[in-house]
Amino acid sequence: MRDFSSDHRWLSLNTATVRKQGDLAQIIDACARHGIRAIDPWRDQVAAIGLDRAARVVRDAGLELSGYCRGGMFTSDAARRSEVRDDNRRAIDEAKALGAPCIVLVVGGLPQYSRPGSDASKDIVAARAQVDDAIAEMLDYAKQANMPLAIEPLHPAYAADRACVNTTRQALDICDRLDPQRTGALGVALDVYHIWWDPELLPQIARAGKERLLAFHVCDWLVPTKDILNDRGMMGDGVIDIKSARRAVEAQGFAGYSEIEIFSNDWWARPMDEVLQTCIGRHRSVV
Amino acid sequence: MRDFSSDHRWLSLNTATVRKQGDLAQIIDACARHGIRAIDPWRDQVAAIGLDRAARVVRDAGLELSGYCRGGMFTSDAARRSEVRDDNRRAIDEAKALGAPCIVLVVGGLPQYSRPGSDASKDIVAARAQVDDAIAEMLDYAKQANMPLAIEPLHPAYAADRACVNTTRQALDICDRLDPQRTGALGVALDVYHIWWDPELLPQIARAGKERLLAFHVCDWLVPTKDILNDRGMMGDGVIDIKSARRAVEAQGFAGYSEIEIFSNDWWARPMDEVLQTCIGRHRSVV
Repeated sequence: MRDFSSDHRWLSLNTATVRKQGDLAQIIDACARHGIRAIDPWRDQVAAIGLDRAARVVRDAGLELSGYCRGGMFTSDAARRSEVRDDNRRAIDEAKALGAPCIVLVVGGLPQYSRPGSDASKDIVAARAQVDDAIAEMLDYAKQANMPLAIEPLHPAYAADRACVNTTRQALDICDRLDPQRTGALGVALDVYHIWWDPELLPQIARAGKERLLAFHVCDWLVPTKDILNDRGMMGDGVIDIKSARRAVEAQGFAGYSEIEIFSNDWWARPMDEVLQTCIGRHRSVV
Repeated sequence: MRDFSSDHRWLSLNTATVRKQGDLAQIIDACARHGIRAIDPWRDQVAAIGLDRAARVVRDAGLELSGYCRGGMFTSDAARRSEVRDDNRRAIDEAKALGAPCIVLVVGGLPQYSRPGSDASKDIVAARAQVDDAIAEMLDYAKQANMPLAIEPLHPAYAADRACVNTTRQALDICDRLDPQRTGALGVALDVYHIWWDPELLPQIARAGKERLLAFHVCDWLVPTKDILNDRGMMGDGVIDIKSARRAVEAQGFAGYSEIEIFSNDWWARPMDEVLQTCIGRHRSVV
């Protein structure tokens, strides 16, 4: 297991963590000040300053990307299928322009939440079938662009509105169906927030192996959690045994960034420099 | 699949659903008014009016029980082990006195939340091992009393503070380890709120079979969920395909009550009669 205690070479900042404190250019500037070497930006943050400018500021700052957030939201009614496909192809093009190593896929829940305006459904089994089909279609385009797709299983609390892929097992089952040769084109993005509770966590990480482990995200689960979406904790403030999860992915050969992604009304209310300093400290002490 | 549309013969009321509107005697009185034939009372509600009186009012009203809530909270530090054991034995004695068909087990999460005052831990693997051991111990006593234990897998959102058994698979694995002969002494209580999201829902219900299906609870998952504990929905107001779940348990031979258990700040604020009328209507239309 890599020693993170003496520097933050392997810290990546998911830019949603400080999305309320500045635009992407300002966030990148702050990363430079704090010696943070990698980010995972969100599409809306890129769009807000323009793709060309975003690519330029990333390049000028010498930053790497640990991913691009996000593709997916595949579930929709029939009228919106081509919109979903085109939207995800654009995400791949953007990821390519930015030099991202993969796109993180949040696959969508029931169609009325993932693509608002879609006909309402309670059929999560059908939603999952649609996700399979849509990833298969996206994978063709992604392979041509040489852009790996990282399916992110989301905590079951988000099954209805954000992602009906809710366990690592389920995400890996999709990978095995669509990429049985383990080519590297399809894998998973594992965020401890979403998977820490899973009784199958360690065996499924072992099953994933190096080829499927495309991204590793950290934050913490607070007790109580006051808001189901925006009350994630800073590493060390909650109940997740983060080091055990990192040890498990590294035992499989994962050697990439430990990406900090915190959606938190509390942390969004603090100055950007304070958040980044805290991230760096906790990366060294508890990740 | 049984036809619930013409009466509510198979509706049971978990008395937590109206816990803010009256004491257990008043709830039972309201059930009688509404032709509700079964309840699942909570220990604190029984204690509030006294066990003897509770048993008498249940008997006088001609009510059946569909369960007794709850045993469990097995996770603690070493100093509290005997307290946990004795507490669960008392629960069995009470269930017996009340004529319950089973005790629902909410197994506990990390010890500092399940048994406050216990030393803090982030080791959910250890918590799960403790749960296994404690259920094994409780099962000996329960068998002597001829009181089945129903392990309730809780939604992963409660893994830290309420139950580290979070999937039907995991609960059934415990059953298979501790009761391989499927004697009926150990099974599961399945609440759609906790399990609806599970990609393995249907195969695990089939695996459970009639011998392990000791209780079936309904409510609904609201989007958005405003409070992680107390914003459960009335059946039909959320996203759960309740009929599919009921069809699956009945296909295994389950022929017991469909128990309504709603923790909801919204529904607790309404008159008891309105809540019960709504429960009856939804039982007939959407369960």
